[in-house]
Amino acid sequence: MQINAVEILGLVAACFTTFGFLPQMRKTWRTKDVTSLSLPMYSVICTGTALWLIYGLLINSTAVILANIVAFAFTFSLVILILKYRK
Amino acid sequence: MQINAVEILGLVAACFTTFGFLPQMRKTWRTKDVTSLSLPMYSVICTGTALWLIYGLLINSTAVILANIVAFAFTFSLVILILKYRK
Repeated sequence: MQINAVEILGLVAACFTTFGFLPQMRKTWRTKDVTSLSLPMYSVICTGTALWLIYGLLINSTAVILANIVAFAFTFSLVILILKYRK
Repeated sequence: MQINAVEILGLVAACFTTFGFLPQMRKTWRTKDVTSLSLPMYSVICTGTALWLIYGLLINSTAVILANIVAFAFTFSLVILILKYRK
């Protein structure tokens, strides 16, 4: 992988779309309120990050693997929190 | 771009992590309930998709451009809905 300005932009973009789930996880963890969260959304996104992870392993891309391990952990946690706290 | 089984897996993964936001948008649009949604999450993810879009334009990747136009539209709409309906 080339490390130039364009690839750095891609890595910054990956950090945003990966760690962006963190504030939602913190909020849900603290408030235990999941009424307005969509279970289908988190199920589909979580499945998507698992597929990205398999893709990353197949093409041997460390960036794709690492980003999607983190994103999978966040979105899977949110699926669990929604299942636990929904009424 | 090679179209083989691995790249098809990547495209399927991209569809999941892009259109996954659709059920959340529909739910929020219908219920107007945003109490448990995290504005920081959608702001960061939306910024991230905009950065991915610029990255896609710079590396001239149709897949990255299209996926992130859709993801940006969904996440930007959610930011607007949260700002509109939060108390």
